[in-house]
Amino acid sequence: MKLKLGIPKGSLEGITVKLFKKAGFNIAISPRNYFPSIDDREIVAVLFRAQEMSRYVESGIIDCGITGRDWVLENNSKVVKVAELVYAKQSMRPVRWVLAVPNTSSIKKIKDLKNKKVATELVNVTKSFFKKKGIKADVEFSWGATEAKTRMGIDAIVEVTETGASLRANGLRIIDTICESTTQFIANKKIWQNPQKRKKIEKIVLLLKGAILAEQKVGLKMNVAKKNLDKVLKILPAMKKPTISALSEKGWFDIDTIIDEEVVREIIPRLKKAGAQGIIEYPLNKVIY
Amino acid sequence: MKLKLGIPKGSLEGITVKLFKKAGFNIAISPRNYFPSIDDREIVAVLFRAQEMSRYVESGIIDCGITGRDWVLENNSKVVKVAELVYAKQSMRPVRWVLAVPNTSSIKKIKDLKNKKVATELVNVTKSFFKKKGIKADVEFSWGATEAKTRMGIDAIVEVTETGASLRANGLRIIDTICESTTQFIANKKIWQNPQKRKKIEKIVLLLKGAILAEQKVGLKMNVAKKNLDKVLKILPAMKKPTISALSEKGWFDIDTIIDEEVVREIIPRLKKAGAQGIIEYPLNKVIY
Amino acid sequence: MKLKLGIPKGSLEGITVKLFKKAGFNIAISPRNYFPSIDDREIVAVLFRAQEMSRYVESGIIDCGITGRDWVLENNSKVVKVAELVYAKQSMRPVRWVLAVPNTSSIKKIKDLKNKKVATELVNVTKSFFKKKGIKADVEFSWGATEAKTRMGIDAIVEVTETGASLRANGLRIIDTICESTTQFIANKKIWQNPQKRKKIEKIVLLLKGAILAEQKVGLKMNVAKKNLDKVLKILPAMKKPTISALSEKGWFDIDTIIDEEVVREIIPRLKKAGAQGIIEYPLNKVIY
Amino acid sequence: MKLKLGIPKGSLEGITVKLFKKAGFNIAISPRNYFPSIDDREIVAVLFRAQEMSRYVESGIIDCGITGRDWVLENNSKVVKVAELVYAKQSMRPVRWVLAVPNTSSIKKIKDLKNKKVATELVNVTKSFFKKKGIKADVEFSWGATEAKTRMGIDAIVEVTETGASLRANGLRIIDTICESTTQFIANKKIWQNPQKRKKIEKIVLLLKGAILAEQKVGLKMNVAKKNLDKVLKILPAMKKPTISALSEKGWFDIDTIIDEEVVREIIPRLKKAGAQGIIEYPLNKVIY
Amino acid sequence: MKLKLGIPKGSLEGITVKLFKKAGFNIAISPRNYFPSIDDREIVAVLFRAQEMSRYVESGIIDCGITGRDWVLENNSKVVKVAELVYAKQSMRPVRWVLAVPNTSSIKKIKDLKNKKVATELVNVTKSFFKKKGIKADVEFSWGATEAKTRMGIDAIVEVTETGASLRANGLRIIDTICESTTQFIANKKIWQNPQKRKKIEKIVLLLKGAILAEQKVGLKMNVAKKNLDKVLKILPAMKKPTISALSEKGWFDIDTIIDEEVVREIIPRLKKAGAQGIIEYPLNKVIY
Amino acid sequence: MKLKLGIPKGSLEGITVKLFKKAGFNIAISPRNYFPSIDDREIVAVLFRAQEMSRYVESGIIDCGITGRDWVLENNSKVVKVAELVYAKQSMRPVRWVLAVPNTSSIKKIKDLKNKKVATELVNVTKSFFKKKGIKADVEFSWGATEAKTRMGIDAIVEVTETGASLRANGLRIIDTICESTTQFIANKKIWQNPQKRKKIEKIVLLLKGAILAEQKVGLKMNVAKKNLDKVLKILPAMKKPTISALSEKGWFDIDTIIDEEVVREIIPRLKKAGAQGIIEYPLNKVIY
Repeated sequence: MKLKLGIPKGSLEGITVKLFKKAGFNIAISPRNYFPSIDDREIVAVLFRAQEMSRYVESGIIDCGITGRDWVLENNSKVVKVAELVYAKQSMRPVRWVLAVPNTSSIKKIKDLKNKKVATELVNVTKSFFKKKGIKADVEFSWGATEAKTRMGIDAIVEVTETGASLRANGLRIIDTICESTTQFIANKKIWQNPQKRKKIEKIVLLLKGAILAEQKVGLKMNVAKKNLDKVLKILPAMKKPTISALSEKGWFDIDTIIDEEVVREIIPRLKKAGAQGIIEYPLNKVIY
Repeated sequence: MKLKLGIPKGSLEGITVKLFKKAGFNIAISPRNYFPSIDDREIVAVLFRAQEMSRYVESGIIDCGITGRDWVLENNSKVVKVAELVYAKQSMRPVRWVLAVPNTSSIKKIKDLKNKKVATELVNVTKSFFKKKGIKADVEFSWGATEAKTRMGIDAIVEVTETGASLRANGLRIIDTICESTTQFIANKKIWQNPQKRKKIEKIVLLLKGAILAEQKVGLKMNVAKKNLDKVLKILPAMKKPTISALSEKGWFDIDTIIDEEVVREIIPRLKKAGAQGIIEYPLNKVIY
Repeated sequence: MKLKLGIPKGSLEGITVKLFKKAGFNIAISPRNYFPSIDDREIVAVLFRAQEMSRYVESGIIDCGITGRDWVLENNSKVVKVAELVYAKQSMRPVRWVLAVPNTSSIKKIKDLKNKKVATELVNVTKSFFKKKGIKADVEFSWGATEAKTRMGIDAIVEVTETGASLRANGLRIIDTICESTTQFIANKKIWQNPQKRKKIEKIVLLLKGAILAEQKVGLKMNVAKKNLDKVLKILPAMKKPTISALSEKGWFDIDTIIDEEVVREIIPRLKKAGAQGIIEYPLNKVIY
Repeated sequence: MKLKLGIPKGSLEGITVKLFKKAGFNIAISPRNYFPSIDDREIVAVLFRAQEMSRYVESGIIDCGITGRDWVLENNSKVVKVAELVYAKQSMRPVRWVLAVPNTSSIKKIKDLKNKKVATELVNVTKSFFKKKGIKADVEFSWGATEAKTRMGIDAIVEVTETGASLRANGLRIIDTICESTTQFIANKKIWQNPQKRKKIEKIVLLLKGAILAEQKVGLKMNVAKKNLDKVLKILPAMKKPTISALSEKGWFDIDTIIDEEVVREIIPRLKKAGAQGIIEYPLNKVIY
Repeated sequence: MKLKLGIPKGSLEGITVKLFKKAGFNIAISPRNYFPSIDDREIVAVLFRAQEMSRYVESGIIDCGITGRDWVLENNSKVVKVAELVYAKQSMRPVRWVLAVPNTSSIKKIKDLKNKKVATELVNVTKSFFKKKGIKADVEFSWGATEAKTRMGIDAIVEVTETGASLRANGLRIIDTICESTTQFIANKKIWQNPQKRKKIEKIVLLLKGAILAEQKVGLKMNVAKKNLDKVLKILPAMKKPTISALSEKGWFDIDTIIDEEVVREIIPRLKKAGAQGIIEYPLNKVIY
Repeated sequence: MKLKLGIPKGSLEGITVKLFKKAGFNIAISPRNYFPSIDDREIVAVLFRAQEMSRYVESGIIDCGITGRDWVLENNSKVVKVAELVYAKQSMRPVRWVLAVPNTSSIKKIKDLKNKKVATELVNVTKSFFKKKGIKADVEFSWGATEAKTRMGIDAIVEVTETGASLRANGLRIIDTICESTTQFIANKKIWQNPQKRKKIEKIVLLLKGAILAEQKVGLKMNVAKKNLDKVLKILPAMKKPTISALSEKGWFDIDTIIDEEVVREIIPRLKKAGAQGIIEYPLNKVIY
């Protein structure tokens, strides 16, 4: 029996296909076709919106899928959370659903929203947020364009954001965070008990994680004289033992390691100063610890 | 006080802007801005999804707007239906919400759907359709991709279609029509009692109708000798009295009229045979009867 | 029985669809589908390359089609030439197949091509051209890129051109014209004897000709005082009797006529000088004499 | 001798080519070629930047050209201003060069700019503006990006604008207008004395003006009963005598006129109310009074 | 003397240029120019259609070129087959020319095609296929659009396909394979005897093969403790000896190897289970054994 | 205090952003925003034209920036030249400003330009070039389109070129080189004395150079038997000591080195002949010696 895998249609679609490619699976999506081809005979893929993915995983229409933690919560779905895959449309960071009001609004805190109108696509999560805070607000469903609505009589909105930049650009002020969300790989509870399907899911997740990690890492190689070896090794982050090999030229070593791309620009000048020579940085496809 | 006018974001957006342009109003939509500029100082425009337009008109957030009859029904909104504007994304015809099943399904009639799963974006209208028919079906909300769902365990879908072509291309068979829908210009009930705003709305609607009609009509002019005049006039549809002027050349007349573009290709050969000469067809911007 | 109509795939495709639209027939071509939809229930359309259209019309696979005179000659097809439709990819003029050599070649006249290599896609027409001239040249089939071949050892090429500009830009010199070609509407000989199909073909051709003519004409209207009437009328080309109507203001007339777009820019200054006032030019969809 | 005509490269380029097309001249610009083809054997066209057009017209390198009044002033060129052609990149209105400062600047009036830094592309005009006002400011040349410079230590900028919108969007406040500018057709002084070239220039200008006017006008036709004739005629603007013809149906008239597109949406409802029937609006290519 | 090299214009063009780039040669193709630039002074490149490449290689117009085995057969060209380069437009697999009929056809086997019409671009190969099978079919040349022809009276077609998907999508059933074809590097027979040119060709082919291989391989590196070394090495495919280096940390080794990209997703989970740590996968430009 | 860094707007913009990315800095430019975001909290970036960059660095409006040597000379700016970054729009080579005349011009040498008109955007550098040569030419500012001007009465032009190809394509002959120019990283003189800012600048430059070098290099790895080691090592360029490690298989070594991409295609065949096996080439992100 093939594994029925849900791919999120919409904002996560492109980046998800790219990650599967790096992980070793070629997914091809044709316009107006909801069944992408995938070059693994044990998998059948289907496109669903992130918003409803967890409902279909829960009811067993599909075995597993990729969606956001936000929509699992919204649908209150009983599913197995197999793994967090920290990636979003624009960056490798979690997204936030935030409560925002116009810059010019007199609303400063959550309690100012008592009896006020709040528009959002994430109605259930927002309602329970206000319930927990003990504030009675009028939360209603809104199909996007929420910013616009604050100028038309809606008091506050709850919107998803990666950096907050587009909210600020729309003249909105964030007053609280409703929930954080990362991308998740979820599975149906029964399917997870099926050893063969579970093993297949674990393989896919292992490779996806390897591909995500490789987006954030680079390889770094350099030549170091014996006398500088300790100094240089101290600068390298301790994440993974670097490979140190003796060069044919006596007293010299080759160091080969993997580091976070983010720190490279800080570390290279320091490595050079510490005596590293012929430093090269090279790209990676997968990193699996 | 300016008239607050809702423009439907999404599939009707482009064609709506084009019609307003023909009607004499330039609307400019910037990406990521929900307040299009419009070159009429008495109007402020805002973009809302067709799905929620009637809710905002009903609650008075906006004074009037353009949406589909389907969504007015779905939201069960109490609004004034000012005019039917028969246009859709691809054509100048109404759209239909149809009940469809896979070609290979054993379901043939509505009653076969008893206790079956039906996925649709138009949940309320679909539910009351089944209620009226006395059939108990399990109707659930679905974010698009409905065709795909029929291959994943959903028994039937209710989808919108202009020609049925894309449903057929997806291997689906239509078994009934849930509702027909045209584009409507709707207004808030209180606003409709405001004479100034009502007058403004009526002006806009008059011009929009003129622009829609002009899409379907062309001007036709020809020279006819006196002896052929009756024969030629009999061929011309009776929609509007043609303008007949005597030419300076004695015994000749010029006929100038407006006819449906659809019939031109049938009529021109007949006019020619009946003695019309120098037939020309010219385009129109507006037609107002 | 529907009329089977061949639409030329390739360079004439876009302009042909546009002309049918102006003529009143909407043809919609989907990528990778050779059967365009057409909004006339009496016609079924199919896409064939211009090169083979006449073969399929001759053998009766289709009833009629649009192609170039060049390919009818090349295939030596026995078909009915219903009408010349003077349009090409870039302009409303005939195209020419010309014999060309590199600028630097010593070949000046046709007879210099004795025993030389000539590459062309129009092999048969070229061969009979040389035969008529009594010159023995080695004519071989070439799949495009003919210009390139003159730099690789081919002595001359026979290529199609609208203006000669791209040949010149490729450093080639035209030494003779092999044949002129216009677009033609051709029909199968038997089908042409079928009164109903013939009538349908004649209708289509009448409307296509009306659309082509309208591309080259504009409407011109102006007010003229009685004393200037003769002067003004003398300037207007005699193609069609202008419509002259008396204005309500005594002594003034309105002239309404159709003229070639090409001459408008010469005529308007002269009309103005001759006393015409309020001259307006308007666009046309069809012109049928 | 051909007329050497300068076409403005850059922001006016597209709209200029479009106007010439409407005027009856087909100009084809190839990428990286400064000599556009034009289908008039008496003209040779060349592309120059608007900024330097008047210098080349003055020195006789070209006979005439199209540029902005602003650059004629900046270059202080001695040329003949043949005609104002009121069109710009986005609209049919003049543009303004305005003096602007950041919203947050303490500068309120021109005199606050004493000894301050002003960046602009229009250096000479700006300098003489300050001179006339008796204020000593430090005006320096800037290659665009002027808004950015106000955030980097430049006190004020002088920039061109059609509506002021992009300045406002960049957080700038307009404090004065340096000069207004429209598009102009200019000619070399000697060439203007040459009767043949002058006549050619006048012809071109007549047709360009006809095309510009047609952008702003539409044709309007309607049927009116005798008793309503006066009422209807009073509503129509007096720009041009409407053509009134008696219809074959007794007591009815056809009115055909030209009016500003801008007023159509106001006038049509009034015409209808006054008894006009079968009102149609049609597009125009040229309008020449 | 420069090496004259034919690059296939059309479906193989883009992928060929990309492979040469990976192989170390930058080819730049300008639109409408048949002589691409190449950054190797010993080569001159020319674009020919794959269909006629072998004819020009055979006659010596070019020294060598890239084309499909299919067209070498069709032209029956006497050329040297230097190397198979297994790549096609969409994949790194051979293509097939297949005999296909409509799903609804009564034709099931080749012998059912006796006296039937078969349309194809590969006329000669198809004719000899039928000859070998002892079946007399009427094979005629067709310019593409072959699928369409089966609906217009042609009984079968012979078309090229990579996966068969587009034939199935067009409602066709494959009944046999006429020939398989891979991309080939071919050379002129005389040129192949010229030691200098042959050496140059062999260099190019060596690098192209290195680039093709690199498309299918990736580098894989990992750390392994001594006790797991054998287990891990057994999992790695035996294609090439992995590089094993002792790490500075005693008892640990670094393994660096090259494996097929296709098997990575199967092998990584097994390597991890066998004790490999810090597994990284990196991309390759060339692989030469 | 943040480092104010000027990014060159225009032809160098795209390639500069790409290099910063490879160097480890993500710069995001929004349309119509002159302040790109950069993911380094110690830097604020601003877009200026290369033409005026050095003026703003000199006056201290920004601390440092990237521009061409040509514009530093033209503006005669007193700035610190921190580093040469040899990259241009199309290639990794310097550009040249050349003096060119039409092919058909009688001007052959610089001295023929006495009293002639020379148009250029690089007025000051050109003037001092002629001064040094002792030739009096009339040098005037020109806004691009210089080639066109040579056909309108300008005798010569001074234009920038990477390969000379576009000048030749425009029918121009190069008669001398005015100056060579490479991209430079320049800094304000005072800022350069500030130790913290200088250190920051040096870090950025180190990484940029690493990224530029990596564009021109690739990694090369191979297995070599002991007996072939010397032969193979002699073939490898001496730029950097290769890393040689003993393989676990006795008598075999792994060589890992960095070489110029340009020489790879020459070296690989020689390495193979010399006994290297399993040669792989891999891409690099940064190379820092």
